[in-house]
Amino acid sequence: MNIRFYHAKILVTGENKEFSILNGELWVENDSISYIGDGKELRNQKEDAVIFDREIDVEGNLLMPGFKDAHTHTAMTFLRSYADDLPLQEWLEKQVFPNEAKLTKEDVYYLAILGIMEYLTSGITSNFDMYNFPRSIAKASKDTGFRTVFCSGLNNFVSNLEELREDYNVINAMSPLTSFLPGIHAEYTTNQKLMEGLAKLAQELKAPVWMHNAETQKEVEECKARYGMTPTELTEALGFYEYGGGGYHCIWFTEHDFELFQKHDMTVVTNPASNLKLASGICPVKKFLDYGINVAIGTDGPASNNCLDMFREMFLTTGLAKVKEEDASCVSAEEVLYMATAGGAKAMQLPDCDRLAVGKKADLIMLDLKKPNMQPENNIVKNIVYAGSKQNVKMTMVNGKILYENGAFSIGFSEEEIYRRANEIINRIKG
Amino acid sequence: MNIRFYHAKILVTGENKEFSILNGELWVENDSISYIGDGKELRNQKEDAVIFDREIDVEGNLLMPGFKDAHTHTAMTFLRSYADDLPLQEWLEKQVFPNEAKLTKEDVYYLAILGIMEYLTSGITSNFDMYNFPRSIAKASKDTGFRTVFCSGLNNFVSNLEELREDYNVINAMSPLTSFLPGIHAEYTTNQKLMEGLAKLAQELKAPVWMHNAETQKEVEECKARYGMTPTELTEALGFYEYGGGGYHCIWFTEHDFELFQKHDMTVVTNPASNLKLASGICPVKKFLDYGINVAIGTDGPASNNCLDMFREMFLTTGLAKVKEEDASCVSAEEVLYMATAGGAKAMQLPDCDRLAVGKKADLIMLDLKKPNMQPENNIVKNIVYAGSKQNVKMTMVNGKILYENGAFSIGFSEEEIYRRANEIINRIKG
Repeated sequence: MNIRFYHAKILVTGENKEFSILNGELWVENDSISYIGDGKELRNQKEDAVIFDREIDVEGNLLMPGFKDAHTHTAMTFLRSYADDLPLQEWLEKQVFPNEAKLTKEDVYYLAILGIMEYLTSGITSNFDMYNFPRSIAKASKDTGFRTVFCSGLNNFVSNLEELREDYNVINAMSPLTSFLPGIHAEYTTNQKLMEGLAKLAQELKAPVWMHNAETQKEVEECKARYGMTPTELTEALGFYEYGGGGYHCIWFTEHDFELFQKHDMTVVTNPASNLKLASGICPVKKFLDYGINVAIGTDGPASNNCLDMFREMFLTTGLAKVKEEDASCVSAEEVLYMATAGGAKAMQLPDCDRLAVGKKADLIMLDLKKPNMQPENNIVKNIVYAGSKQNVKMTMVNGKILYENGAFSIGFSEEEIYRRANEIINRIKG
Repeated sequence: MNIRFYHAKILVTGENKEFSILNGELWVENDSISYIGDGKELRNQKEDAVIFDREIDVEGNLLMPGFKDAHTHTAMTFLRSYADDLPLQEWLEKQVFPNEAKLTKEDVYYLAILGIMEYLTSGITSNFDMYNFPRSIAKASKDTGFRTVFCSGLNNFVSNLEELREDYNVINAMSPLTSFLPGIHAEYTTNQKLMEGLAKLAQELKAPVWMHNAETQKEVEECKARYGMTPTELTEALGFYEYGGGGYHCIWFTEHDFELFQKHDMTVVTNPASNLKLASGICPVKKFLDYGINVAIGTDGPASNNCLDMFREMFLTTGLAKVKEEDASCVSAEEVLYMATAGGAKAMQLPDCDRLAVGKKADLIMLDLKKPNMQPENNIVKNIVYAGSKQNVKMTMVNGKILYENGAFSIGFSEEEIYRRANEIINRIKG
């Protein structure tokens, strides 16, 4: 399908994390962007003209790269607002783990689709997911047309290295929309032998490695007690990061941890809403930037957030940095928008989805600038980060296909069916 | 106009900050709620039947009290995303003050309407406003049908006690939608003589008094250096709080400040997004609750936030409390929803707008529960606070009149006109 967008403002990502706005047209041919410019070429072309299946008047609204949700557990939608305002351990041990144990792979498929619907309403075009039943999750993305990079959550209780290798092969081959990177859940849930096995496998696959890292102070202290090293030091010593990788959360970092992330060109994914709600702490985002470390942004799962909304995460990323550093000028809107788009794409090994440019994948969104929160148009980038909301998302396109437009989904499932199934699942689990 | 809402979930506010959901009908007659129940009365009534002008099928969605934005500077919409990522003093002195000086009373009227439009998209039915040209602001509310409690921002540079008294009389008499309470901008902008005059006036009017209080650490230290007292101690000693009142922000409080707020049954209005963006600090909300002090929530103005979105503020109110107290169980969703509705109404002296009940003003909103972020329906109150968004606001009614419904405004002005005027104003000011 070929689509022409005209009368558009187009957000162009520069080489130094700066953005500019171009007024003109953007064309999509099949899964990719084939043209960005003032549209003169349309009027000049004759015999080799592109035939458009659809021409969309953007009416001066904004086309921009879709957001990358760089850390999440999508299928935890079933526990959204089920257990909140609880201490972390009680939440995990009494509410999350026992209920997760009751999920089937079919449950996870439909719960992931519910999450995908919410991503689309927030202009998110791909996610970096970690959960049980990886193939159900990848199938949900393939079937709805969403893009997912799956990260294995290997630990002592679920899965093993053989299964992980199989998932790696199956999901990387399943669809152009699905890929797989190796990871462990976290140091505190994974024994040394498993970690050593994963390091070997990652080196063989020449793959980066990911994990939850330094989300809580307790986790770091316990790791130091067990190994005499921080989680970053330990996993680095075990050979995790020969091909890079990164960590989710990364709140309680030592200077040496920062240095190791810098040395291996790793990425930190910050999850500010979850870190507030679970009282985990505030990520030192400014310090990561000062070290030149790539930063991406994730929502974390809907049980700990409870929504999948990159606008809220972007505001929190800059707002929490400002209050932590006592400096209203640090971590600018431009830096944050870069994290939420290109920074995430780098983390997820999606170099073709990082920005709007000819030849890149058509993972893009349309933001409505004609809502009161976007007026007057003093500065569109600052408006997106400081004032933007799901309400501004008019359209979400993944891989050249419009999956969400003016509040309606085109994902092969009705809203009613997905809501009904999600409610049936949680009612069955509650028993 | 009489309106019948049926097939509704109705959020009922209990006596102890708890909420329950009632399935049924809600009727509005003129400006008030005339009935809440299962609708049997409709079938039984005969001769004295209410004639409805409109009957709305709520389709299982939620009716709830509108949000009260308990501290804002609405007309600062013109500076939204104009000057961000700057140190506080530079922002105020180089960007805010010089540009504000160029505003006319007509500018403020239209800029306030732009803000009112955004309130409506966020389910906000009344605001507690402070800005220059009070009568322009009150007129904007009266003309659009929005409810505004105006608080004077008396200081050394703008206005005086005579003008304040006049504004008090004019705005309180202007419309059932407008009222006026006395206040000063802040201790650091107002000399002792003016403060003494205001205290006398408030005692004469038997009115509560408000001000920006302890927003920054610097402000408190400078006040202590000037007077040997905190801003709360000073204004209390000057006689501000004989009839109650409160403070905006209230971040840097001493034990004695808490005690004084408790003693005078005062309210703190927390402004979490602004406090992050300007790096002011984190309000000790849990401690205010522990003291039994009423807490309300405000967005602050769109230059320092940059949006007028009570969903973001509600999430921040609980999230920041949790991370500050290192306790994921503190300041629950229920407590926050109470602050954003009944807590605000108490602060603003709007006892008839605090909850849905027969005889109360029809300041109410409809939230769409059929969006992915509201599914499954595990707990509606927690969903509103942790996952809700402007996207869920289907309808906003103020004083019995629907001002916003399914994305369209009924306020007597077109969106295009208000956006055009806002852009013209900022372009003229930029020069």
